[in-house]
Amino acid sequence: LALMRISETHIFLSGNTNASLQMRLREAISTEIWSGRFVAGDRLPSTRSLAKHLGIARITVAIAYDDLAADGYLEANPRSGYFVSSEAPTSLKRAEPVDLGEVQPVDWTGRLLKHFKGVGPQAKPNDWRDYKYPFIFGQADQSLFPHDAWRACARRALGRKDFNVIAGDFGVEDDQMLVEQIVKRSLPDRHIAAKPEEVLMTLGAQNSLWVVTQMLFAGRTVRRAVIEDPGYPELREILQFAGVEILPVPVDENGLCIDQIPDDVQAVFVTPSHQAPTGATMSTERRLALMAMAQTRDFIIVEDDYDFEISFSGPPRAALKSYDVNGRVIYLGSFSKSLFPGLRLGYIVAPAFFIQEARGLRTLIARHPPGITQRITAYFLSLGHYNAHARLLRKTFDARRKVLVKALAEHGVKLPADDQSGASVWIEGPPGVDTSELAVTLRSQGVLIEPGAPFFASDNPPKNFIRLSYSTIDPSRIPDGVRLIMQAMTKKN
Amino acid sequence: LALMRISETHIFLSGNTNASLQMRLREAISTEIWSGRFVAGDRLPSTRSLAKHLGIARITVAIAYDDLAADGYLEANPRSGYFVSSEAPTSLKRAEPVDLGEVQPVDWTGRLLKHFKGVGPQAKPNDWRDYKYPFIFGQADQSLFPHDAWRACARRALGRKDFNVIAGDFGVEDDQMLVEQIVKRSLPDRHIAAKPEEVLMTLGAQNSLWVVTQMLFAGRTVRRAVIEDPGYPELREILQFAGVEILPVPVDENGLCIDQIPDDVQAVFVTPSHQAPTGATMSTERRLALMAMAQTRDFIIVEDDYDFEISFSGPPRAALKSYDVNGRVIYLGSFSKSLFPGLRLGYIVAPAFFIQEARGLRTLIARHPPGITQRITAYFLSLGHYNAHARLLRKTFDARRKVLVKALAEHGVKLPADDQSGASVWIEGPPGVDTSELAVTLRSQGVLIEPGAPFFASDNPPKNFIRLSYSTIDPSRIPDGVRLIMQAMTKKN
Repeated sequence: LALMRISETHIFLSGNTNASLQMRLREAISTEIWSGRFVAGDRLPSTRSLAKHLGIARITVAIAYDDLAADGYLEANPRSGYFVSSEAPTSLKRAEPVDLGEVQPVDWTGRLLKHFKGVGPQAKPNDWRDYKYPFIFGQADQSLFPHDAWRACARRALGRKDFNVIAGDFGVEDDQMLVEQIVKRSLPDRHIAAKPEEVLMTLGAQNSLWVVTQMLFAGRTVRRAVIEDPGYPELREILQFAGVEILPVPVDENGLCIDQIPDDVQAVFVTPSHQAPTGATMSTERRLALMAMAQTRDFIIVEDDYDFEISFSGPPRAALKSYDVNGRVIYLGSFSKSLFPGLRLGYIVAPAFFIQEARGLRTLIARHPPGITQRITAYFLSLGHYNAHARLLRKTFDARRKVLVKALAEHGVKLPADDQSGASVWIEGPPGVDTSELAVTLRSQGVLIEPGAPFFASDNPPKNFIRLSYSTIDPSRIPDGVRLIMQAMTKKN
Repeated sequence: LALMRISETHIFLSGNTNASLQMRLREAISTEIWSGRFVAGDRLPSTRSLAKHLGIARITVAIAYDDLAADGYLEANPRSGYFVSSEAPTSLKRAEPVDLGEVQPVDWTGRLLKHFKGVGPQAKPNDWRDYKYPFIFGQADQSLFPHDAWRACARRALGRKDFNVIAGDFGVEDDQMLVEQIVKRSLPDRHIAAKPEEVLMTLGAQNSLWVVTQMLFAGRTVRRAVIEDPGYPELREILQFAGVEILPVPVDENGLCIDQIPDDVQAVFVTPSHQAPTGATMSTERRLALMAMAQTRDFIIVEDDYDFEISFSGPPRAALKSYDVNGRVIYLGSFSKSLFPGLRLGYIVAPAFFIQEARGLRTLIARHPPGITQRITAYFLSLGHYNAHARLLRKTFDARRKVLVKALAEHGVKLPADDQSGASVWIEGPPGVDTSELAVTLRSQGVLIEPGAPFFASDNPPKNFIRLSYSTIDPSRIPDGVRLIMQAMTKKN
């Protein structure tokens, strides 16, 4: 075997600038070896010459070499340095000849009979954090997030002791530690007394809505569901896909107008804490009336309580589920707003028989939410961080909302009886304004807003609404942001 | 406010013995405060007296107090110790009176029209790791797993720099770093040259099968799919739920008997690398014939390549997808076997238009796999750990299989032409044996086996098959385990 010395000029740092220099060097060298460009017996440059060539510290190169040796890519020879190991992982070679035949591609556009947008009005540029006035909903404010506490929980969850838990296939089960914590630390705030067998973990509210829709309507010939109008657009898509007839019912400052609920519906989907997108909180009177109506007319209530934690004008009104002595309410909770949406973790609270069946369905769809995210979140709850963080969000959002309401008032915009809470306000612009066009104009000025049209069920929705969220904007920027929005609205008009 | 001194006898360590003493103390105290049993102004015992009472180190108490203060539960007074803070997070109180009405529970057993088992033959006791002879499939062997490398990747992924990536709502998108790594480090081993826009991340093979089934059959009136018999039971459940007519086709030592594929089918689901559960590898000749047949008869091939990494008798045969010039193959990859099943991460490789639509559907179902699991895995691949670990699994499983084959041979059991690889063998017991009963008997002797009956599509399946996996058993225990199995089989007969 003729030993080749690899020249330092053949080694580059990988382009992944999020990673450390040492990692970028490991990435580069392991790629060269795996792909067969550096082969067994090849001698690596000395740490000194490579460090000098790349302009990095010699210790960085030394650590990278050492780690590559631990993974079997390199072998160290005490006298003459590092070599590519004869045992190094390399790309698997194709053994057989290939006859690719004549090319006649499948026409996929014709073959797929149903189409999916999958994108709601939350559509936002990926670099939204670089905008000065991001009035967007549903993202986490990194300046409020308790990074250290979260990482401490992650270290514990990813430790050797918990490996057997997080690595295993849970099947129809969940991380029992997390379920217990939800029962103990989260649901009591909603006055919901649930047993562990009445709780199922999901991949967030979206996944819960998918599972519940399949559960309630699969196998039925007549399928009718009430939704809020305006409401969550992805829910309409989920129901449409399941072949459910959608009955939109309007919303006022007290939430869903329940006297307009049609007869013969099997389910009513509501967001009583903060109606999405108007933010209206359903009054207690209406809650009790809805519960009574569900019983008389025999329908199921699906209560999407996606952000109850964000309540600051007095204690939040009790969840519908807390009145549910008959097992008529399917309650959906989520960590997307209280922690962050990329976590993809939520839960369903429902009668034990429903949950048992839902376990089977969830397992068919995706088995279970990852052990890693379940266990980190379990520790975060168990150590009291979750309750502390929810408290911080309430205080912060309360202050931000006051700034926003004041700024809007200065431009003559009044909110309907501002006893609301939540993380956003819903504003009706002048009749002629198209807020989708407005959003484009404002984006160039560093302002991100959410046009309201996609929330309406109608094919010809009102175009003059916007949802303004304050969950990720620096409060000092709110007045200027509002001014820019109001200027653009007036100009357009 | 009358200050109360909390007695150390009122403070216990929480029962979570996986956590550190310090964490258990924080859990206990934060729970008492949050639930209102300790109230604002209450004075905590001194670190000295509490430490003495609990029999733990004083520093442990001091750190717990300090962390609780950081979260706002406690306040420190330099002279007199720690008090419950007036700003402490506490459970939200119910504001309204409750009228729960008459109790007439919903009859859920009658209301749900479709039922879900969700449990395949993999059913295993939760404490399977405590069994001496766990011949079970699909779990991770903690003694082989590169814990340190994985945790280093996790630390990086959970660092502040990547927070904005992992915390965000990806919507229809994925972690681009992971997709690039799959394209660069994993698919080339299958001789698949894919572009990033041809790859969609999923929550594992189960989730991929669910998504693909919905994509291929939604909106069709005639729905016919071929599956392998025996085959993956959950696939049958997914197809049944989607109203697809299931056409089981037998399997021999070269995989699916393609000459028995009926006419007029829209899709053929196959596991060519290692047929699940028989482990048979589809011959190259048959692969090419199947590809040709798909083109002539115009069906789609769904290639579930769940564990191609586990190949050791020569390089693995090229994936069907690698021959796919016409976009007829939907390829499914997974990290469940190469990393661990609780990770819940897999991917679909298909023509860009199919992937674009599948993105929309996946987003409706669950939005996206969590940012955390995607980013940790991306680092794990990029640093070369993944290729190194796959190599280790191949070597280890090769050795274990040799031990198993030898042990079986000593009892007169021969495997059909043992050129197979994978992580399990498929054995036909004597005709009269019911391996489900056998499994119960053996369990009491510390042996876990998988009965074969659930893999068969028939309502009256053969009962004398078992799948023996060596992916999580200590090889030194294989001979004894095999002996116990063979003794039980003979006795039964």
